[in-house]
Amino acid sequence: MPSVPSIPELLDRKRWGGRLSRDELERLVGGYVHGEVPDYQVSAWLMAVCCHGLDRQELADLTDLMARSGRMLDLRPVGRPVVDKHSTGGVGDKLSLIVVPLVAALGVAVAKLSGRGLGFTGGTLDKLESFAGLTVDLSPDQFIRQIAQTGAAIAGQTPDLAPADGKLYALRDVTGTVGSIPLIASSVMSKKLAGGAPAIVLDVKQGRGAFMRDLEEARTLAELMVDIGRAAGRQVTAFVSDMDRPLGRCVGNALEVREAIEVLGGAQADARLVDLATTVAGEMLRLGGAASTAEEGRERAAEVLSQGAGLGKLREIVAAQGGDPAPIDDLILLPTAPVLADVTSTSAGFVVDVEPLAIAQAANRLGAGRARKGDPIDHAVGLELLRSPGDPVERGDVLARIHAASERQASEATAAVRQAIVLGGQPPALRPIVLDRVSSHQ
Amino acid sequence: MPSVPSIPELLDRKRWGGRLSRDELERLVGGYVHGEVPDYQVSAWLMAVCCHGLDRQELADLTDLMARSGRMLDLRPVGRPVVDKHSTGGVGDKLSLIVVPLVAALGVAVAKLSGRGLGFTGGTLDKLESFAGLTVDLSPDQFIRQIAQTGAAIAGQTPDLAPADGKLYALRDVTGTVGSIPLIASSVMSKKLAGGAPAIVLDVKQGRGAFMRDLEEARTLAELMVDIGRAAGRQVTAFVSDMDRPLGRCVGNALEVREAIEVLGGAQADARLVDLATTVAGEMLRLGGAASTAEEGRERAAEVLSQGAGLGKLREIVAAQGGDPAPIDDLILLPTAPVLADVTSTSAGFVVDVEPLAIAQAANRLGAGRARKGDPIDHAVGLELLRSPGDPVERGDVLARIHAASERQASEATAAVRQAIVLGGQPPALRPIVLDRVSSHQ
Repeated sequence: MPSVPSIPELLDRKRWGGRLSRDELERLVGGYVHGEVPDYQVSAWLMAVCCHGLDRQELADLTDLMARSGRMLDLRPVGRPVVDKHSTGGVGDKLSLIVVPLVAALGVAVAKLSGRGLGFTGGTLDKLESFAGLTVDLSPDQFIRQIAQTGAAIAGQTPDLAPADGKLYALRDVTGTVGSIPLIASSVMSKKLAGGAPAIVLDVKQGRGAFMRDLEEARTLAELMVDIGRAAGRQVTAFVSDMDRPLGRCVGNALEVREAIEVLGGAQADARLVDLATTVAGEMLRLGGAASTAEEGRERAAEVLSQGAGLGKLREIVAAQGGDPAPIDDLILLPTAPVLADVTSTSAGFVVDVEPLAIAQAANRLGAGRARKGDPIDHAVGLELLRSPGDPVERGDVLARIHAASERQASEATAAVRQAIVLGGQPPALRPIVLDRVSSHQ
Repeated sequence: MPSVPSIPELLDRKRWGGRLSRDELERLVGGYVHGEVPDYQVSAWLMAVCCHGLDRQELADLTDLMARSGRMLDLRPVGRPVVDKHSTGGVGDKLSLIVVPLVAALGVAVAKLSGRGLGFTGGTLDKLESFAGLTVDLSPDQFIRQIAQTGAAIAGQTPDLAPADGKLYALRDVTGTVGSIPLIASSVMSKKLAGGAPAIVLDVKQGRGAFMRDLEEARTLAELMVDIGRAAGRQVTAFVSDMDRPLGRCVGNALEVREAIEVLGGAQADARLVDLATTVAGEMLRLGGAASTAEEGRERAAEVLSQGAGLGKLREIVAAQGGDPAPIDDLILLPTAPVLADVTSTSAGFVVDVEPLAIAQAANRLGAGRARKGDPIDHAVGLELLRSPGDPVERGDVLARIHAASERQASEATAAVRQAIVLGGQPPALRPIVLDRVSSHQ
């Protein structure tokens, strides 16, 4: 028996539920990234991980070496506390557009790096690009300089950040090994660690409109990501939040920007969206040292919202990234769709459900999302939900408004959205927006 | 969702413990054999099978499609009952050399196809090649003609028999997925099904000298192989037999041939070897219709052994395959090693253990086995075990005799074998040679 086990011996050990050391993971995964280990060995390992999981040390080691597979951003030149924020993705999730300026307005710098979502609707980057001229393609130097000067930047991940994750994800995608909580945790956290922020707030969406359908699994994902961050010397808080219904009233890129501007401007807004935004912002303020408790942070965030003070910071961010901030003061300047159509109620009662996946699919068919990398996106289209679960409804009430590129698409979306909004005789039992919270540093 | 699931969807289903249909297995495994499905997807599936297993139908389907990936031998031209016999491999396992002529002598044809073993000592083919001039490379036509004329043939598997197995095995070997009972069962049985025999007797070795270390796992392997055979319309009986010690007295190619000739000639022989040989032969006679019960078959086999009637059949088989049968009547004509060395006892007592793996390794270092495909083998070298577990021993008794190519190798082997033969003050508890029996047709 040689002193250094062969790759097949490592795979056999994992096959029986054993663990690999940091050096062994480096040989397997690092070797794969450098083209020395073939994909058929790594896919066997990925499947064994799906079946047996990874222990804490393995997960920390794997994520760290994935992060170190490329450039590690050094945010120390920013010169003050920097926080990152990440969501696992949901329907109508415009939270970053709200909390990034909000937290920056309160003196905690935000370094927000996003991937290009492949979901039914656009990601944060797509939404932000509703501002004419705005770019999310910042070089690391530009990114850091903007954070130092403006207090926040929202940029696309560059391919030199955690390249191991991209390579592993591509293999997972074709080998049925996407659905593994530890692999999901290491994928998210490798990019967050490489992004350089010493404090990270994660929003794990759970429900029918999220990748995580099961609450216990969402909690596990939150715990694993916090564990990874702790092992890497970062402060991490993960929330588990409800995605059994769309978040807020708008779904679609410019529509979500409009809703974010309304929330930041202190307008009457969806209470659950405001609740989640102030909770997440409050935690970012705490981790960034601008509040001594999460509750204090939440109160400060709510105060800033009610005063509309976050709007100025959003203007600065948009301008710093080359965008025209005029729509912030004149919403009509945002991209608008040529066709509007109302979905009206055919009966009276209560809204008992707004099925999030059906809403997302309707928005996608309107052109708000993309099926493949590089597909174009229509920033103007989407839908507004004017009634939420629990709201009383009269016959003829407008339940939703469709923003479409054509009459045909408007008509299709109207039918789909009518199906997705379920009415009943009794108001439903509703769960709170924040379902759980896990933190590396209480 | 498309009506035909994609390969990643099939892998994801298996990842969660689901099952694949025959068509789906054909797309995955058949596609792999035809170069349409990449190895990284098949290795992920292999690992999922290691973790979750295969259900009965999946196992039957997989094995059948592996068998049908190449030529399926048709043994009907033989014109009478044909039985195959297979062992999972052990130390000193010369059973085929005994039972094939024995059963053929009693009128049941034997179609014995073997792979080239990569174990510590040679396989049946290597042992048989101790006869000068003998070939095991028979074409399918030659193989079938010899069985029809002589009643038996022992030939190497041709690469066109179950090629899917070879391709899958090569991938398992480098992905840590060798250790899976269903995959082992399908590998063995795919070749047996392609080999064409309507009845098959399997000898699953279990113990420290066998691939199967665990008795329950060996039983499971036996059951799965019998299940596969039943599903394929074959009669299959599997024995689980003891491999916690070498089988018989000799380990090494020509030495094992010599021991087989002695057993067939009715000489005083190792009782456990004779017990297993008559049990396996008796079952082959039953499945081949030459005995109405296994016990009747065993008695007939024992009778033939005591009369030495199997020797004539061995002569015929050796001659039919181009070998010189003279050593059968004059053992001195078998290959002999230049150096003999005795391992003597340094104390009195009982033999309590003969560690099979240490014995096999000693034989291997003498040159009796091969490390890689194509390595040469020394047919003459090996060792004789003159005392068995349970035997009383006096100080100075010869425990074993080494047959070596050089004095140095003899001296190394002497030390190793002395270590492998453990003496004690009390005779040990010994398990029977036949541990279990599973049959598709009682």
